[in-house]
Amino acid sequence: MTLTRRRLLNLVGKAGGAAAAYRTMAAMGLLPVPAAYAGPPNLPPGSGHGVSVVIVGAGIAGMVAALELGKAGYRCRVLEARARPGGRNWTLRSGDTVEEVDGSQAVAWEAGPHMYFNPGPARIPYHHQGILSYCRALGVPLEPLVNDNRGAYFHDDKVLGGKTVLLRQGITDARGFVAELAAKTLDREALDAGVSLADKERIAAFLKDFGALGKDLKYHGSSRAGFAIEPGGGTEAGRRNEPLDVRQLISSEFWWRLNFAESAGMAATMLQPVGGMGRIGEAFGKALGDVVTYEAEVTQLRRTDHGARILWRDRKSGAEHEETADYVVCAAPLTVVKRLDADFTPEVVKAMAAVDYVAAGKVAFEAGRRFWELDDHIYGGISWTSRDITQIWYPSAGFHERNGIIVGAYIWSDDIGEAFAKKPPSQRLADAIADAEVLHPGYAKEVKNGVAVSWAKIPFSGGAWAEWDEGARDAAYPVLLQPDGPFYFAGEHMSYVTGWQEGAVRSAQYTIGQIAERVAARKI
Amino acid sequence: MTLTRRRLLNLVGKAGGAAAAYRTMAAMGLLPVPAAYAGPPNLPPGSGHGVSVVIVGAGIAGMVAALELGKAGYRCRVLEARARPGGRNWTLRSGDTVEEVDGSQAVAWEAGPHMYFNPGPARIPYHHQGILSYCRALGVPLEPLVNDNRGAYFHDDKVLGGKTVLLRQGITDARGFVAELAAKTLDREALDAGVSLADKERIAAFLKDFGALGKDLKYHGSSRAGFAIEPGGGTEAGRRNEPLDVRQLISSEFWWRLNFAESAGMAATMLQPVGGMGRIGEAFGKALGDVVTYEAEVTQLRRTDHGARILWRDRKSGAEHEETADYVVCAAPLTVVKRLDADFTPEVVKAMAAVDYVAAGKVAFEAGRRFWELDDHIYGGISWTSRDITQIWYPSAGFHERNGIIVGAYIWSDDIGEAFAKKPPSQRLADAIADAEVLHPGYAKEVKNGVAVSWAKIPFSGGAWAEWDEGARDAAYPVLLQPDGPFYFAGEHMSYVTGWQEGAVRSAQYTIGQIAERVAARKI
Repeated sequence: MTLTRRRLLNLVGKAGGAAAAYRTMAAMGLLPVPAAYAGPPNLPPGSGHGVSVVIVGAGIAGMVAALELGKAGYRCRVLEARARPGGRNWTLRSGDTVEEVDGSQAVAWEAGPHMYFNPGPARIPYHHQGILSYCRALGVPLEPLVNDNRGAYFHDDKVLGGKTVLLRQGITDARGFVAELAAKTLDREALDAGVSLADKERIAAFLKDFGALGKDLKYHGSSRAGFAIEPGGGTEAGRRNEPLDVRQLISSEFWWRLNFAESAGMAATMLQPVGGMGRIGEAFGKALGDVVTYEAEVTQLRRTDHGARILWRDRKSGAEHEETADYVVCAAPLTVVKRLDADFTPEVVKAMAAVDYVAAGKVAFEAGRRFWELDDHIYGGISWTSRDITQIWYPSAGFHERNGIIVGAYIWSDDIGEAFAKKPPSQRLADAIADAEVLHPGYAKEVKNGVAVSWAKIPFSGGAWAEWDEGARDAAYPVLLQPDGPFYFAGEHMSYVTGWQEGAVRSAQYTIGQIAERVAARKI
Repeated sequence: MTLTRRRLLNLVGKAGGAAAAYRTMAAMGLLPVPAAYAGPPNLPPGSGHGVSVVIVGAGIAGMVAALELGKAGYRCRVLEARARPGGRNWTLRSGDTVEEVDGSQAVAWEAGPHMYFNPGPARIPYHHQGILSYCRALGVPLEPLVNDNRGAYFHDDKVLGGKTVLLRQGITDARGFVAELAAKTLDREALDAGVSLADKERIAAFLKDFGALGKDLKYHGSSRAGFAIEPGGGTEAGRRNEPLDVRQLISSEFWWRLNFAESAGMAATMLQPVGGMGRIGEAFGKALGDVVTYEAEVTQLRRTDHGARILWRDRKSGAEHEETADYVVCAAPLTVVKRLDADFTPEVVKAMAAVDYVAAGKVAFEAGRRFWELDDHIYGGISWTSRDITQIWYPSAGFHERNGIIVGAYIWSDDIGEAFAKKPPSQRLADAIADAEVLHPGYAKEVKNGVAVSWAKIPFSGGAWAEWDEGARDAAYPVLLQPDGPFYFAGEHMSYVTGWQEGAVRSAQYTIGQIAERVAARKI
């Protein structure tokens, strides 16, 4: 059977090439076909001639829309309130400024290719083929992002007396606990009827391997949890870490974060652009050239007989401008769009009010010494604490450089995020330093030149990302998926991948497909 | 309590700086002190003046020994049979040649910074601080190595009708199975006495999160297993992969490989030098300069009244040379050392015979198209198959480049490795291509210019790495840890980290410590 199948595939391969063999194999159910990413809608060249589109916002969604519509001959203009492309795709480097609604912070750290901070998106999962395809097309070099570093730390004030442990200790000991519990069923009728003795033995053997159990099917610790003394040369056989009190660990919901790297968007391989996530926005901006008008703040959206009239203000000169277009793609966050003086229907206004935006925030510091590598042997990844900073991120690039940028907080839960927004940046930084001491004693002396970004307070963002609750997804989301006359809505919020750049890409592609269909129908 | 502790640490930090706070925290048991790596023995400067050491082999162990002894004033000479430093630390690039005992292969692929192949070691775990410290000291840039890519494939001819699945499917579904099994104990007395209802509820909640179980504490599939259709923009809510038949999976021992990335040496963060593992050997070679004599094949080791006499042959000219030294560090593999014409004691000869070397081998191909990224969305990591090739490795660098090098086989089990060694390289390559078709249909048309390295057939290696069985570790290993007159033994085989460069580093450091003690004793 195996030979026959292989022979068949070889024959198909010889006759039709690799792609044919691939499709045959997929059709035979022998290959997990990667999740379908069809690419952008294949708009016929020239199909957009004579059609004008104004796009509000040069974030990822707006720029994807402009790029793809432009290829098909649409006349596009992107109006971007900021002086740079990318929107929440943003990398801070030496000399940059962070503007919040009530103040600004200068980025004062040393310059260097590895001296950057992504206040917004900072990781791309391998299966986000929409954004990855644009990285390929636009020549944005990628490198691995270490998301799950088992050598980083875990800390919960309420558990183990506030002791900090290695992630690999928590993960390994929890696996051992679960496997040991599972093995207990094997001796009993608890297991489904019809399971043979041989089956039970095989399951027991698997559980032993899964959980690093002993011959007695109990967990007694494992080298998977790391070493108190590393095995070495000569007589140094090493000593592994002692098991933790797992029942205590798992009593804390915070500890369940141990499972985070299993989730759909967090599992390896995770990627990042070399030099900062902002490289993507910058590459889109470069590709679009003067299709984007910067520092152009849209103030009004009006319906006209044949489309829309857009009023915008040049933030440099203060001059007001008017623009007409057949269609408008509102590719800014709803926090911004809903505040425009616009001719939206009451249904759309109501729908826009139904979505919540997360008041996420991040803090970054310059470190003159990569203490996390030198003292803690942490190369990339994330440490977790139950304190407000929630996470510390270590850079996945620039290993063994003299200095570096450490992400000193990544906050996304509503209550902590809202409190964070209310504090002045100096207080956010002071609090972040105090929190981090549980993970890195002496931290206060290691870090300087902190920057604290609260997305709720960033003009033209007004939040980090959209979250639809079930009711809003059912009722409001479909309303915004339909054009409101000439007005379309695009962005991560108009997707099932909210909070990710992939959502912005896929939403923009959906929207241009809608526009192209409408244009095609009009022309026939 | 928490505040008091924090205050104490702040006080210590203020008084003694970060390092003092760190040590205090560690002493309080509040921090998982990273596994102790003391660094190389701190030999007093000048302590080796007038002492001569010949080192056999410019592999990692030999070069660490030469570097550290040299710092302390020892007169060192490294005799290396090959024309390059590094030993098994080796990167093949365009234009290189692979010499086996009975033939040679030219590396014919296109040149490029990402067009390389490491036939030997190819990954460094974050906690191997010995080798990492030398990377830091010698200025070898590092980057993450993707070891565990959940988007790579798993395939077993005997399971699921030979269907290939995503690693994340196997891993997620197995977790679900184990958690569901564990949850069954909660309803019964099976659980230890003394567990309260509240405890049971907490454990149940944890198991639900651990295994992605439903409210009924049963596993019904999860987005953690990946998507058949990715969630996207607009109306595309996506569809997750259906659960596999886990009982079938775990019936295969091969499937337990799913747990590999949990193990001590395989868990993230894994690292690699930018441009190939050989960068480390090259950096050591550069640092040592003419301390290393290349193409110098040691033929005899003799005892003398005051040390040793070493005979070696210049492989370029064929000339025989004689050298004397107080001590000799045999830093070549025992496969090589035991074949020397040497004045070893019978105990040492017997001990050397007790260690096994693994007949591991690898295959690499040039690909003109990075089909694993384009078709399969695989960025780095490893696919597994029950067929002989065992693994396919995808490069962790050069993402989205036009071309690349794919590791088409990594074999280390004795029977397959020995069969691999016996085949001519052309046959190894043909077989590797046939095997890979189950993972990548059409593979044969994608790859070219293969290179196949069988370590058993590489001169001056004669095997991939040492494996001590329990008896040999107890009886033979201690014999070789003691100097045999002027002769010392160093290398990965003389460590508890066999098969890793870390073992070579730590063994060399152990050995120079022994020599320094002896020298100090003589001088007093």
